[in-house]
Amino acid sequence: MSTESVLPPAELQRLMHSGVPLAAAFDIGVEAAGAGTIRVRLPFKPDFLRPGGTVTGPALFALADLALWGVVLTRLGREELAVTTNLTLNFLRKPPPRAVIGEGRLIKLGKRLAYGEVFLYSEGDDEPVAHATGTYSIPPR
Amino acid sequence: MSTESVLPPAELQRLMHSGVPLAAAFDIGVEAAGAGTIRVRLPFKPDFLRPGGTVTGPALFALADLALWGVVLTRLGREELAVTTNLTLNFLRKPPPRAVIGEGRLIKLGKRLAYGEVFLYSEGDDEPVAHATGTYSIPPR
Amino acid sequence: MSTESVLPPAELQRLMHSGVPLAAAFDIGVEAAGAGTIRVRLPFKPDFLRPGGTVTGPALFALADLALWGVVLTRLGREELAVTTNLTLNFLRKPPPRAVIGEGRLIKLGKRLAYGEVFLYSEGDDEPVAHATGTYSIPPR
Amino acid sequence: MSTESVLPPAELQRLMHSGVPLAAAFDIGVEAAGAGTIRVRLPFKPDFLRPGGTVTGPALFALADLALWGVVLTRLGREELAVTTNLTLNFLRKPPPRAVIGEGRLIKLGKRLAYGEVFLYSEGDDEPVAHATGTYSIPPR
Repeated sequence: MSTESVLPPAELQRLMHSGVPLAAAFDIGVEAAGAGTIRVRLPFKPDFLRPGGTVTGPALFALADLALWGVVLTRLGREELAVTTNLTLNFLRKPPPRAVIGEGRLIKLGKRLAYGEVFLYSEGDDEPVAHATGTYSIPPR
Repeated sequence: MSTESVLPPAELQRLMHSGVPLAAAFDIGVEAAGAGTIRVRLPFKPDFLRPGGTVTGPALFALADLALWGVVLTRLGREELAVTTNLTLNFLRKPPPRAVIGEGRLIKLGKRLAYGEVFLYSEGDDEPVAHATGTYSIPPR
Repeated sequence: MSTESVLPPAELQRLMHSGVPLAAAFDIGVEAAGAGTIRVRLPFKPDFLRPGGTVTGPALFALADLALWGVVLTRLGREELAVTTNLTLNFLRKPPPRAVIGEGRLIKLGKRLAYGEVFLYSEGDDEPVAHATGTYSIPPR
Repeated sequence: MSTESVLPPAELQRLMHSGVPLAAAFDIGVEAAGAGTIRVRLPFKPDFLRPGGTVTGPALFALADLALWGVVLTRLGREELAVTTNLTLNFLRKPPPRAVIGEGRLIKLGKRLAYGEVFLYSEGDDEPVAHATGTYSIPPR
């Protein structure tokens, strides 16, 4: 199996920004991509705060969801109609007001369903602030 | 047990908008609240689209997450530092480009953890587009 | 939509016991079934204990999983090859050493996937000890 | 941080078998343990079959749940009263009638909650048949 992404990071980011306006509004970036792996980045914005001065869950969810969507596309190419079937987000530490990095990988790519996980880190930290797992439904070809 | 919310819907909405800028940016409204129940509303915005012309996951997640936070506050009052421990979002039908209603209820309120569920509906439809379950951690008093 | 189960409770229980030896070993019973609803029962056995004198998670999971399988069959009939895609079990209260009742219902029945929830109760109690949600994959016909 | 388990594998297995009769009935073994890692094994038994000739979900859940409980004990020592708060099991491939290996690791150990994941493999296979994530509640000391 090739270790190269079918789509380069810049193309994945372009697809995210053109297909998902929230990804563009949040300035989510694709920093790296391999076949079944992806690194995405959410810059910090004051709009992402929640009580306690930490990054709000929906911003983390957006990053995790787009990481999983992107990681499916690293293997399938332009399959923008892949849709989330479910996504579970576990919060592990309070994310300080700083950029968040998502490291995603595909665990299983089937004909109908794909499954992967994403670890989210505050930029510069080694301990994850959150962990997501999710299933995507792949449209019949 | 009283069936009245400790906080009226307008006050819950005010807390959401002042504490969580994304809730204000998304114009999330609190339409009704009882002791352990809440109805929230996400108006449609073109920014919420995703490929296929449906409402994007992160917008649904934001609504579900705020519904669960709000439903905890209907029982505990101003406990803004309650934080999500985990949230699972299951997508059931493609949500058309229309407002989304969230009907949340608290299933268990313990000393340390609260657990609830939210059904999300396209406004005017009876069949849910998504279902969320989540756990909130309650800070020690 | 009919409110009657395609299969009567006794037939659902027979399918569970013949197809899933663990269901027979655990003496799981089907007490009632409608179109998209089911009530199952796990009798207490000393083998189900865990430290603290409560009912162990795997026994609750078995009951929830079979409830969801059964509830799919209340609508589809003999579709024993429906398989769990994922199941999330949330534990809400410590279940005392007593029979456990599962009340399951189908939330969505699609062509490829079915999704439902199960509330688990200690027999005679009104407050749930656990809540499960799960997705089943339906084989192509 | 030490990489050695506080409790050796044989002691973890003894605690499982004495505290959880189902673990003994299923012959679940602890093959290896480090500080925050564990390898467990479920031998195949005809009782674990389900329609289609694969290993049934409740048997996989039991293995995953005990792996997570055990992996908490590799760090905390004898803390048998740690209880599952939630566990999500994602099924990825049909497990053939063969022993199942669980590779668990602790992702976060907090004061009140611990979170980890387990990959399940059919013995001798490299591709996981299932993936579990779960949260455990740690009793106050």
